[in-house]
Amino acid sequence: MYHVLSCDQFSRADLEGIFRLTDNIRAQPRAFRTALAGKIVATVFYEPSTRTRLSFEAAVLRLGGTVISTENAKEMSSAIKGESLPDTIRVIGGYCDAIVLRHPDIRSAEDAARVSQVPVLNAGSGSGEHPTQAVLDVYTIYQYKQKIDGLKVAVLGDLLFGRTVHSLVKLLALYEDITIYGLSHDVLSLPEDYSAYLEARGIRYIPCRSLPEIPPEVDVLYHTRTQTERFANTDLPIEEFVIDKKALDYFSPHTILMHPLPRRNEIAPDVDGDRRAVFFAQSHYGMYVRMSLLHSILKQDSEG
Amino acid sequence: MYHVLSCDQFSRADLEGIFRLTDNIRAQPRAFRTALAGKIVATVFYEPSTRTRLSFEAAVLRLGGTVISTENAKEMSSAIKGESLPDTIRVIGGYCDAIVLRHPDIRSAEDAARVSQVPVLNAGSGSGEHPTQAVLDVYTIYQYKQKIDGLKVAVLGDLLFGRTVHSLVKLLALYEDITIYGLSHDVLSLPEDYSAYLEARGIRYIPCRSLPEIPPEVDVLYHTRTQTERFANTDLPIEEFVIDKKALDYFSPHTILMHPLPRRNEIAPDVDGDRRAVFFAQSHYGMYVRMSLLHSILKQDSEG
Amino acid sequence: MYHVLSCDQFSRADLEGIFRLTDNIRAQPRAFRTALAGKIVATVFYEPSTRTRLSFEAAVLRLGGTVISTENAKEMSSAIKGESLPDTIRVIGGYCDAIVLRHPDIRSAEDAARVSQVPVLNAGSGSGEHPTQAVLDVYTIYQYKQKIDGLKVAVLGDLLFGRTVHSLVKLLALYEDITIYGLSHDVLSLPEDYSAYLEARGIRYIPCRSLPEIPPEVDVLYHTRTQTERFANTDLPIEEFVIDKKALDYFSPHTILMHPLPRRNEIAPDVDGDRRAVFFAQSHYGMYVRMSLLHSILKQDSEG
Repeated sequence: MYHVLSCDQFSRADLEGIFRLTDNIRAQPRAFRTALAGKIVATVFYEPSTRTRLSFEAAVLRLGGTVISTENAKEMSSAIKGESLPDTIRVIGGYCDAIVLRHPDIRSAEDAARVSQVPVLNAGSGSGEHPTQAVLDVYTIYQYKQKIDGLKVAVLGDLLFGRTVHSLVKLLALYEDITIYGLSHDVLSLPEDYSAYLEARGIRYIPCRSLPEIPPEVDVLYHTRTQTERFANTDLPIEEFVIDKKALDYFSPHTILMHPLPRRNEIAPDVDGDRRAVFFAQSHYGMYVRMSLLHSILKQDSEG
Repeated sequence: MYHVLSCDQFSRADLEGIFRLTDNIRAQPRAFRTALAGKIVATVFYEPSTRTRLSFEAAVLRLGGTVISTENAKEMSSAIKGESLPDTIRVIGGYCDAIVLRHPDIRSAEDAARVSQVPVLNAGSGSGEHPTQAVLDVYTIYQYKQKIDGLKVAVLGDLLFGRTVHSLVKLLALYEDITIYGLSHDVLSLPEDYSAYLEARGIRYIPCRSLPEIPPEVDVLYHTRTQTERFANTDLPIEEFVIDKKALDYFSPHTILMHPLPRRNEIAPDVDGDRRAVFFAQSHYGMYVRMSLLHSILKQDSEG
Repeated sequence: MYHVLSCDQFSRADLEGIFRLTDNIRAQPRAFRTALAGKIVATVFYEPSTRTRLSFEAAVLRLGGTVISTENAKEMSSAIKGESLPDTIRVIGGYCDAIVLRHPDIRSAEDAARVSQVPVLNAGSGSGEHPTQAVLDVYTIYQYKQKIDGLKVAVLGDLLFGRTVHSLVKLLALYEDITIYGLSHDVLSLPEDYSAYLEARGIRYIPCRSLPEIPPEVDVLYHTRTQTERFANTDLPIEEFVIDKKALDYFSPHTILMHPLPRRNEIAPDVDGDRRAVFFAQSHYGMYVRMSLLHSILKQDSEG
């Protein structure tokens, strides 16, 4: 692993290696406190994503590295100055040992990696990929279920535009005997290329239109925010599938409720105290998964 | 001490402990250079307050800690994403060891502390509290006067909206034999609940309308900026009480002139070279007081 | 050297000292990894200049120092708060060991240095100076040519408003037997005070209006972006002097092509792979030159 650009780059063995290292880091964080000593990681964000940026930066710092950072990267390519993304990457790559990039264009991470003299980690490329989110999602499932093979996973909400859902189902397709339930309004269904992708890999995909179509013993409920900003107001489904305490109690005591956050009202606060609500833990695992990825990459780099 | 939320939480003994530690840190800063090694402090600012943020961040770094930072925290709760402050705190609390929070809502610090898994330090909650500013103000007086009991303190300017004045008089009320002179225009007088608070604690409070009503031997002049942004333009008093060299020379050579900064024209530049003008030293003590608070909290935390 | 404010402060011997230290740092970076341990450098930017800021911050971190940073410094002096630059500098100077300042006013760096209790490094003062850029430009020439005396240097593009050109020719004037070719449209010619400055120091300055007026064996082509933001649209020369592969091949294999970046279309991407195109290396030398300057200043400071 040199760059982290896309979910598509990970094999099942890759994920297992990342998960093992993540477990090690969580078990003995002090052993990793100087792993990136002397390394500088640049967080280059063309659009603010404070949560993701802080998670990456904390990961670097917990490994003993240091950070240079901007949320104003678009200023470098502003109308007046007119710099291309590849030029920016080539310049900043001379200051640091890795670049964490957030950019609105779907091909930005690949474009950056092509010219970069240091590893590039994709922290969100427009409506495209957000691979570290996908890895942390699967890691969270693995933490609570101790396996991925054979699981039943329900994805809820915005299956059409939900980037995290698309990445999650792709990674799940690396495993055996997976069943995926997709609960959404009709206009927010999973795109056909994804359902075809799953079918081609022997994953059962079952579209649903109401909560009771999901079996109560499902292992994972993965809810998402409707990307209302992508709709003209009039197109928007009026009601969301709200998971509140009552809805959650329809499910097994062993079902876990995940969400990439931020949530709005699709998950009610009355479930926050429920042991099955693991979305805050999920966000915290994100830092450790990013530590694991950074460690793998910059270790490799220093040996290479 | 776990959180720092409000002036109301400090006893006289607390302040004396903080002041003693601040003196120690200033006397031998090298002894504290690794006190927060391995700790990450997040500065989470929903409105920019560069001065306060940099002061806190320098405090963390001088203790050997590291910082993750945002001045765009409001983006996390923006209209589209719609995340609540408690959710944001729960997420960020998983990345760091303490949160320094600046937020426009008066109850924000308490709301954050209620859900946070790490200590919260209030760096300004709207028109409400800014407790570390109040502690550094009293520490500054203590530095120059070697005591607080028995002092005569004049507060000037905007006593109605001036958050720092409100907090200062509350902390002074912890001491014995204090006299407070309050010089302001009529429309900017100290609110009645504060004067009642002082009276209930045996503090003499003497409202004034002109400079000569303050005795020349007053120990402290604490001037403040009129919060013009809170007025309709037409309501604004036309003249400020300007302290220039001539005005300052009315007072004793032992009077000190303080200001929480930024100043505008209420303190003229011609006093800057005067030994009694201590407002820049006051701002610098702020960093050391914050080091003291951070040290107390994160030390306690690591032992707890 | 205490402050870095202007190109005018450097003698030839100063530059040679800086270049020698820069060479040392590049040769054995590990030997400098703790040089600034315990030092805090504040990057105080009144206008965003992400590239320059990140370069300075990486320089501090590579020397083992730490950084406090703002791109919102103008907020500290905003209309409502109304703080003067000197006040801001006096406050922030109490938190850190050096200030890197970017400010739109031409006299800002001198104004800051006059009141600062710590060294000030000018990272760009409006249309005035950007001295560390000038030093890195000359260092880059020195790297590729192993000398400056006797060189033929062509400056291209916006010689009227191009701050980096003005600083570069001033530093070149410290050396012997220099010839400078100035290629620009008539309305963008080098200002007369600069050509008079060069003449007074025995530097040959030869204005050109087309590329073939520059001899092919010129040692350096230093191209610049036209500062279109300074023109009313109608004033703007229609065509730029574009250096593409064909234009570059008119020159000697030993000519180097520099640019302070960002570029737009004045240098075509088809030269990027050419060995003579050194503008990305030039930007990377910037970090090392800034390490050298910071090291000189803060070392001196700790001994002083």
